[in-house]
Amino acid sequence: MAGEESVRNKQVVLKNHVDAGLPKESDMEIKESSIRLKVPEGTKDAILVKNLYLSCDPYMRNRLKKLQGSYVASFQIGSPINGYGVAKVVDSTHSGYKKGDLIWGITGWEEYTLITAPDTLFKIQHTDVPLTYYTGLLGMAGMTAYAGFYEICSPKKGEYVYVSAASGAVGQLVGQFAKLLGCYVVGSAGSKEKVDLLKNKFGFDAAFNYKEEPDLDAALKRCFPEGIDIYFENVGGKMLDAVLANMRVHGRIAACGMISQYNKEQLDAVHNLIYIIPKRIRMQGFLVTDFYHLYPKYLETIIPHIKEGKITYVEDKAEGLESAPAALIGLFTGRNVGKQLVVVSHD
Amino acid sequence: MAGEESVRNKQVVLKNHVDAGLPKESDMEIKESSIRLKVPEGTKDAILVKNLYLSCDPYMRNRLKKLQGSYVASFQIGSPINGYGVAKVVDSTHSGYKKGDLIWGITGWEEYTLITAPDTLFKIQHTDVPLTYYTGLLGMAGMTAYAGFYEICSPKKGEYVYVSAASGAVGQLVGQFAKLLGCYVVGSAGSKEKVDLLKNKFGFDAAFNYKEEPDLDAALKRCFPEGIDIYFENVGGKMLDAVLANMRVHGRIAACGMISQYNKEQLDAVHNLIYIIPKRIRMQGFLVTDFYHLYPKYLETIIPHIKEGKITYVEDKAEGLESAPAALIGLFTGRNVGKQLVVVSHD
Repeated sequence: MAGEESVRNKQVVLKNHVDAGLPKESDMEIKESSIRLKVPEGTKDAILVKNLYLSCDPYMRNRLKKLQGSYVASFQIGSPINGYGVAKVVDSTHSGYKKGDLIWGITGWEEYTLITAPDTLFKIQHTDVPLTYYTGLLGMAGMTAYAGFYEICSPKKGEYVYVSAASGAVGQLVGQFAKLLGCYVVGSAGSKEKVDLLKNKFGFDAAFNYKEEPDLDAALKRCFPEGIDIYFENVGGKMLDAVLANMRVHGRIAACGMISQYNKEQLDAVHNLIYIIPKRIRMQGFLVTDFYHLYPKYLETIIPHIKEGKITYVEDKAEGLESAPAALIGLFTGRNVGKQLVVVSHD
Repeated sequence: MAGEESVRNKQVVLKNHVDAGLPKESDMEIKESSIRLKVPEGTKDAILVKNLYLSCDPYMRNRLKKLQGSYVASFQIGSPINGYGVAKVVDSTHSGYKKGDLIWGITGWEEYTLITAPDTLFKIQHTDVPLTYYTGLLGMAGMTAYAGFYEICSPKKGEYVYVSAASGAVGQLVGQFAKLLGCYVVGSAGSKEKVDLLKNKFGFDAAFNYKEEPDLDAALKRCFPEGIDIYFENVGGKMLDAVLANMRVHGRIAACGMISQYNKEQLDAVHNLIYIIPKRIRMQGFLVTDFYHLYPKYLETIIPHIKEGKITYVEDKAEGLESAPAALIGLFTGRNVGKQLVVVSHD
């Protein structure tokens, strides 16, 4: 009987789109439905997974909006939202997956998800590192830091590197990669605790709390008297404006995100773009999805670094699916310390 | 006797710096001094030249300001201003130059100039093309268009190319280069006459008068329903903002100049920079001086194109040194049609 095999499936469901302003927990709701733990009969090449860890990522803010023609699709009202996560295969009609396999990739914000196009998923091979790392360090955020820094920034030993949102999922890695290469690295973040992490845990050469700097231009001039060769851009707006005035000749800006702008109705003005001409600055936006072919190479590099303790990673774990809406919203107030993830189940 | 060899040397002398606003003719003055037509005794490796044609270039606006730490030096109050020009060697103590040689490069805005470091000059070898071309098409502007388009824009056949200030010294060439490569090319300019030139003389696929477009975004959407692959940026400000919203994925912006900004005290706000992330736009500033090593290659390409009529060039010639201040200022009101130069002497 079907009833025997059905289990509860708690879900984070979108109640309404949020085009501007800070999203609220009440824009989402926790609903319970039920699900059979089998791929439905006749559904080929699909897998049914049990979600273990969900990743909270800034790009998801856009999907909360009612979008048209964006590179990402809007979340649908009345359906569970989705995003990167780590999950375990419960049932499979796909020849590449079998029960018990671990994967990371796009899954639902719910306890169990039927994934009908599993070819975009990554099968987890290395399980001798914390599984949660596949929501960040060994997942999308890690690849973002890796591709953004090495492929977009063209970094060289000894260069001056500035990272904003530097204690976040991506920033903490960019700073560590830059230090491993022999760069001088400064990061900014939004609290004393985060600034301490940057200096004492991630080995940044210097760090500052942007909220305590009345003049960002002055802060950058103090940290970079010679100017900035590489800016890894995670925040946009006023910070970008101040950075442009402090770049060195032939500087590079990798535009990874602009989290300060995502809740705004009217985007902040940038006035200093003209500097890109005399300083010959290259500013380049990128999306990690263009670089996933490098993932095997990334793993080859990063796994030994993790095992040798050369790369560390700070995670902020919210327990239980009920805590997921608040965890996601917390990204935009800077509540998280390190990579924000949600633990749905430990196994 | 010295008196016998001295001649009049009319000069365009800077009276005061102009940090913001449109420069006026009265910010410069025409002065007469005298000069001996010999390199002064004891001055090694110098040449004395008779200036034939002077180039009016937008970058000179910055040199009218009192600058600190810029990539260009301020003009000096009480001295003749200087810039690119075509000149004939009258006397030389440099082994590379002899009387009668023609050169282009940085010279004074005066009838005769002593050049004490002639190694930065280019000796003119091809004289079977109009000599005035070395103030533009075969000089700095031509190299700017060539390096900016081919080296910075990474253009491909069939791409959608937009050029602002498209009838200017650089823009008219970028458009023609793009057409030769097989791109779809649209230009904007500030008068009906210029728009006609773009369409009928330079072969642009379409063109519009930006002054008659109440909504630049709408104008770009009309001209580029599929979006813009390459933007050759000459103007900055509001135009750049509108372009950012109309770029295609993996688009490229070569930032050559931002003439709309040069007279402003407060630079225009750009709000749409966030588009560079989802659209993976590369925006790169450049200076032609980084590319002069390509000049021989450029000549090899362009001279046959000129002779075969595949490249045309429109010049706006102001007659006489007295007309030079107005000609320079005219760049910033769009008075010039095509490459603005000043004829000091025809031989």
